[in-house]
Amino acid sequence: MTTKIHPVILCGGSGTRLWPLSRKSYPKQFGRVFGELSLFQRTAARLSGPDFAPPMLLTTSDFRFIVGQQLTEMGMEPGRILIEPAGRNTGPAILAAALALRDTPQALMLVAPSDHLIADEEAFRAAVRAGAAAAAEGRLVTFGVAPDRPETGYGYLELDEADADGPVRPLRRFVEKPDAETAAQMLASGRFLWNAGIFLFSVGAALEAYRAHAPDLIAPVRRALEEGREDLDFFRLAEEPWLAARDVSVDYAIMEKAGNLAVAPLGGGWNDLGSWTTVWRETGPDADGVALSGEATAIDCRDTLLRSENEGVRLVGIGLENIVAVATRDAVLVADMAQSQRVREAVAALKAQGAAQAEEFPRFHRPWGWYETLAMGERFQVKVIQVRPGGKLSLQSHMHRSEHWVVVEGTARVTVGAEERLLTENESVYIPLGATHRLENPGKVPLRLIEVQSGPYLGEDDIIRYEDIYARG
Amino acid sequence: MTTKIHPVILCGGSGTRLWPLSRKSYPKQFGRVFGELSLFQRTAARLSGPDFAPPMLLTTSDFRFIVGQQLTEMGMEPGRILIEPAGRNTGPAILAAALALRDTPQALMLVAPSDHLIADEEAFRAAVRAGAAAAAEGRLVTFGVAPDRPETGYGYLELDEADADGPVRPLRRFVEKPDAETAAQMLASGRFLWNAGIFLFSVGAALEAYRAHAPDLIAPVRRALEEGREDLDFFRLAEEPWLAARDVSVDYAIMEKAGNLAVAPLGGGWNDLGSWTTVWRETGPDADGVALSGEATAIDCRDTLLRSENEGVRLVGIGLENIVAVATRDAVLVADMAQSQRVREAVAALKAQGAAQAEEFPRFHRPWGWYETLAMGERFQVKVIQVRPGGKLSLQSHMHRSEHWVVVEGTARVTVGAEERLLTENESVYIPLGATHRLENPGKVPLRLIEVQSGPYLGEDDIIRYEDIYARG
Repeated sequence: MTTKIHPVILCGGSGTRLWPLSRKSYPKQFGRVFGELSLFQRTAARLSGPDFAPPMLLTTSDFRFIVGQQLTEMGMEPGRILIEPAGRNTGPAILAAALALRDTPQALMLVAPSDHLIADEEAFRAAVRAGAAAAAEGRLVTFGVAPDRPETGYGYLELDEADADGPVRPLRRFVEKPDAETAAQMLASGRFLWNAGIFLFSVGAALEAYRAHAPDLIAPVRRALEEGREDLDFFRLAEEPWLAARDVSVDYAIMEKAGNLAVAPLGGGWNDLGSWTTVWRETGPDADGVALSGEATAIDCRDTLLRSENEGVRLVGIGLENIVAVATRDAVLVADMAQSQRVREAVAALKAQGAAQAEEFPRFHRPWGWYETLAMGERFQVKVIQVRPGGKLSLQSHMHRSEHWVVVEGTARVTVGAEERLLTENESVYIPLGATHRLENPGKVPLRLIEVQSGPYLGEDDIIRYEDIYARG
Repeated sequence: MTTKIHPVILCGGSGTRLWPLSRKSYPKQFGRVFGELSLFQRTAARLSGPDFAPPMLLTTSDFRFIVGQQLTEMGMEPGRILIEPAGRNTGPAILAAALALRDTPQALMLVAPSDHLIADEEAFRAAVRAGAAAAAEGRLVTFGVAPDRPETGYGYLELDEADADGPVRPLRRFVEKPDAETAAQMLASGRFLWNAGIFLFSVGAALEAYRAHAPDLIAPVRRALEEGREDLDFFRLAEEPWLAARDVSVDYAIMEKAGNLAVAPLGGGWNDLGSWTTVWRETGPDADGVALSGEATAIDCRDTLLRSENEGVRLVGIGLENIVAVATRDAVLVADMAQSQRVREAVAALKAQGAAQAEEFPRFHRPWGWYETLAMGERFQVKVIQVRPGGKLSLQSHMHRSEHWVVVEGTARVTVGAEERLLTENESVYIPLGATHRLENPGKVPLRLIEVQSGPYLGEDDIIRYEDIYARG
């Protein structure tokens, strides 16, 4: 390859189909669905190496620090982080990426979701190499997966029979999610692949396709870029023009209308993890169909997925058949496997009940690290707070509570009023009501401390911020 | 009634059939299976009032403080608390109670398990009144429940047809747990009642029955009483003779052999809560058979029990049929309803895996109150500690850890070394490694504090006790 491919990773989604593991505040692409790395981290790793430029990331304001931190954990640097002021589907997002790269029209972009699983990395790289050649010739390349079952949950790609053996094959048409009968026919014909939602094309070819098939998107998305602003390490697209762009998928906006399409077959080993059933399948069920993850025990079960997501939460299944059970510290899902896509209804029901578990986790991620509530009473709250090396909370004060901090790991630099001091493991400090204070981690290892709050009102909004290195309001 | 009936409440059992709600360290009779009172408290309340003397309690060393505290919570005083050095089944236990009352041979004893549910209290009292008349005449009275299904999980009582309308009816024989066919025949005949495991007899009649039918039990149980010792509010049966007594049920030891038997019919509304299926039935399922408890939500379920046992743990079921799901903070059970009696296997499996959840709860009960671990790291542990009014921890020191205490509710009297001070809400104290210290609640409301431990070893056995008002080792 002569020039590096620009990965464009879409990581702004907030799917709930894997609730309670995936929630709006920290969706599945950032979670550890399989192994120690998140799906986003696996995606970034897959799209790194000598063939690739640093990845461009498209995300939302809520996740802007998470993506940076997850890359840092892996020793990777992001290319550019574009922040979408609101979800507008993949059509405008990919156009924004293409416009951001418009100075290099020959450059190739590989657009990929961040929440899919690709087991066979080698086959994926081979498909990318094959696709790159076609993309360099100006074609719009999609990636297709050989189906092994009559899946009704995916879109399909119909191949031209003419050129059945090439590494990249001409595409006849896109097919929307089929009914069961159509899916069975397509599987039998051998001419259909699943649409993996991964695209490879040159910046110039992409812009040309948008101009030809979705010209209305160009002006608002260009304005969103031109009027956007740098914010620390991020680039915020301008909200007003962005909201004026049509909410449309890239498939519908350009791919289904373009003529210069090609398919790079991906082989198997791809999974969109779009429901707990697909996770069950990917976990590698045993001969009885039982798949376990975490502290889970099955007694006499069949075709069942048992996942415990948190250390210290034991999950036991007895005599189950076709059941998905997922246990977290604060929420448990038990569903008939065939109805696991109805998880959205559960999330909606919990939201209507005002249950925090619908959208939030007990652990809240912040630019400086995270915190989690351990115990709560009418007039007290206990939190564990972790600050990453170099992390610094805002200079702040509270009107309704005082706080005790006890350091249990690492070293803290603590400012209370005019006084600044270092605290290490087993040392504590008291922050009286009203005192300005600040916490930071000046060390090389994570800082962990226990905060005990006392007061009649303990809401997160009892905070006056005087200064914040993360430019939060 | 001329003299008061002596309730004898058996509360030493440690059943696991309702795991994870019932565990060895705090079994179901002490848990809140239905409503705000424990099953034991409901039993004690049912056997109180003008007809009854204070209850005699038979329990084990592990539960000695729990029974006293649960009675105190209700404003009741125990009569005598007999501690069994080991479980020897109901035969020796009831004999011990009878021997303890032998100075009043005319007195009536009502022996009851502490973990059953009796919904119709008025019918129960009427049955007791009817039984008392027969017991006063020297008969051994059992209580029988009219069956409403061919249950194979209970023993049965066969009635004599002769005297079908009396308030107390002659008993022909005891029937062991039947197979399904026999159970159906017995239900159809109308001559069989479930054996509720509740007994009413005079002290003299009971002793006579033991002498006649289980004479080998008398000597060891009498010695266990004679050689036992008072310990604070308890009476500890002597271990060596107690262990020499045969492990046998009262049914087998005397009831199945005696001739002077009578049955007091109890009507319905009785449930032994012997499995999650019986709990489901007792919860009052809706028209679809769905029974919910706590923070539980059912979407399109049938014949399903969903119970969340802890605040903050949301349980959702989707499309389930014949499923029992019980979620606690640290353990979740999901079982096919028909196999819910196999919970014992699950507990055994967890025990084999070394999982604490097999037998313990996160909350540990102590004579002075309770504690619970909120967070744990390699070199720290955070606990919440609650001390009841008047409660006093032992005077102690630790070799491997120091502690920070922050009071969040109530008032503490804290001794560290030679210094004693009062701490109230939002005040803290530091206990250096090696310092002798003591915590007590001198107030009228519960004291709650957060303890942050730091050190390389944080086991409960790092404790040197200098003084303990609860006479613990």
